[in-house]
Amino acid sequence: MTVTVAVDAMGGDHGPEVTVPAALTALQRESDLDLILVGRDREVQAQLNTLGNPAQDRVRLVNATQIVGMDELPAQALRSKKDSSMRIAINLVKSGDADACVSAGNTGALMATARFVLKTLPGIDRPAIVSAMPSLRGHIHMLDLGANVDSPPELLLQFAVMGSILVKYVENKPNPRIGLLNIGVEDIKGNDIVKRAAELMRNSSLNYQGFVEGDAIYTGDVDVIVCDGFDGNVALKTSEGLAQMISHFTREEYGRNLLTRLAGLISLPVMKSLRKRVDHRRYNGATLVGLRSTVIKSHGSADTLAFRHAILEAFTEVKNKVPVHIREELTDMMQAADR
Amino acid sequence: MTVTVAVDAMGGDHGPEVTVPAALTALQRESDLDLILVGRDREVQAQLNTLGNPAQDRVRLVNATQIVGMDELPAQALRSKKDSSMRIAINLVKSGDADACVSAGNTGALMATARFVLKTLPGIDRPAIVSAMPSLRGHIHMLDLGANVDSPPELLLQFAVMGSILVKYVENKPNPRIGLLNIGVEDIKGNDIVKRAAELMRNSSLNYQGFVEGDAIYTGDVDVIVCDGFDGNVALKTSEGLAQMISHFTREEYGRNLLTRLAGLISLPVMKSLRKRVDHRRYNGATLVGLRSTVIKSHGSADTLAFRHAILEAFTEVKNKVPVHIREELTDMMQAADR
Repeated sequence: MTVTVAVDAMGGDHGPEVTVPAALTALQRESDLDLILVGRDREVQAQLNTLGNPAQDRVRLVNATQIVGMDELPAQALRSKKDSSMRIAINLVKSGDADACVSAGNTGALMATARFVLKTLPGIDRPAIVSAMPSLRGHIHMLDLGANVDSPPELLLQFAVMGSILVKYVENKPNPRIGLLNIGVEDIKGNDIVKRAAELMRNSSLNYQGFVEGDAIYTGDVDVIVCDGFDGNVALKTSEGLAQMISHFTREEYGRNLLTRLAGLISLPVMKSLRKRVDHRRYNGATLVGLRSTVIKSHGSADTLAFRHAILEAFTEVKNKVPVHIREELTDMMQAADR
Repeated sequence: MTVTVAVDAMGGDHGPEVTVPAALTALQRESDLDLILVGRDREVQAQLNTLGNPAQDRVRLVNATQIVGMDELPAQALRSKKDSSMRIAINLVKSGDADACVSAGNTGALMATARFVLKTLPGIDRPAIVSAMPSLRGHIHMLDLGANVDSPPELLLQFAVMGSILVKYVENKPNPRIGLLNIGVEDIKGNDIVKRAAELMRNSSLNYQGFVEGDAIYTGDVDVIVCDGFDGNVALKTSEGLAQMISHFTREEYGRNLLTRLAGLISLPVMKSLRKRVDHRRYNGATLVGLRSTVIKSHGSADTLAFRHAILEAFTEVKNKVPVHIREELTDMMQAADR
């Protein structure tokens, strides 16, 4: 089965300079992948001409005259940017021309437009944002990373179900372990919402492991960490900040004098493989889970390697029928709850 | 002025083996410091005998027959551990024998006991936990780190006031910059609580800088980050987990083979100064701010260096009259609000 992914070629900080080479390397990697590049014809074509395009028959261009600004209000983008690369990429999924779409553009606008055009699955009010994060033992998935604030317990349960299914089919783990983010592991810890969510999860068919604290993201003791979008976003951004600080200090310390620079030179291979293990680019591509089709949000500052990863994430999820499985299992769950 | 600090010598994972040597090195560092070591006489004295005690006239022992367990419920500790080292250390502050106390014991029990014995300042319902965190430009202070969940906007404003005063007097920064933790910097981002808290801060005399995201902890763009205890705790624990993972991966990569081990050996001085810059032990000692006296919570796993830092934090806060200043400025604020 060939998977067709629509790429918002204009989104993100770098536009076609990043999205087009990323698209071409993704095609090299996956022979079952076709791409539709959506954006200003001339700019996209210019990139293709520069790079050469060995997989011509697997790339199609669709013109879009508008671009959604990174700071634009979601409602405004939805109303006034009907010919934007983002909107058209999403429309292509709706019409069935593409199986999934990927954008590095404005998160709020992508969320609002995807929700409006593609609709959420039955029983889901708003999509959640889920992404893999590196951990001591590989990686874990965490949701919600910022789409939903003040999530009630029932919504946290939906996150858990969706995260569990995603990991089951994408990672091929039959029974993903679910942890609920809290500020202590004892039952008495936390607020009423996590306590009630814990009860719902305990009474579900999920492989629920109990409360976890923030450090569990990186110990990898569970496969999926469920949290409200406010907390997930705080954890994500805090991690980005700390990683940048450590990286900055490392450069500073190695740059101190001739001796430390020599040590840095000798340590280069070590630092390189270390960086590779925690490289956020290898985790780029968050899924807007809960929609009827696959929509992947790339980091706005993504480079070619990172954006390629986001495209491949879309490919993998479609290949593994993630939205279909989520829909089926959510339906089963709701029917079980009705009984 | 001499500052007397009561030390819960039995608290934490290591008890007198850590608390007693930490106490002695703290005395060496500050000549205006006296200490009262509270714990099982014989165990504390045994440590003093082993170490020798050059500052004999500045250390006093007070016997305590009980110990609060690390997993004990706060209410139970409060009720049944009236002769514990933690309780007696706090009682010594109440009676005026000590100016402040430090414990590495059970956080919940320390919070409950300190609140019950010492009382909160007028207008403060519950103390908050505040600590310094390393940042690109030195360090910042963050609160609440886990004492209060579901904090309403008015409580977040109190945190901001207390954090501002603490930084003003401890760090000698006349007008600390305050940031409010959110999941975006735009006014429309976040939940109702942070939006209303932002309005309160804008209308206060605080040097309020607006919303900040999690990465601001480490960029150091503000001096104080205010947040609900749930989010603060998530940020703190997430940071601990990430730092541990990076440290683990670094050791693994340097240990891979003879060549990488050699690179590691050559990089030792660099790694050492790097570690020093982000050493959480240098930030050990969180303040239970909002009490009528200074109470410092040390990490349970603190070693001698870390616990010494917690004792010195108590010394500095008393020396700079932090609780007195907080009381005065809170009173002024409440009077201004009544007008």
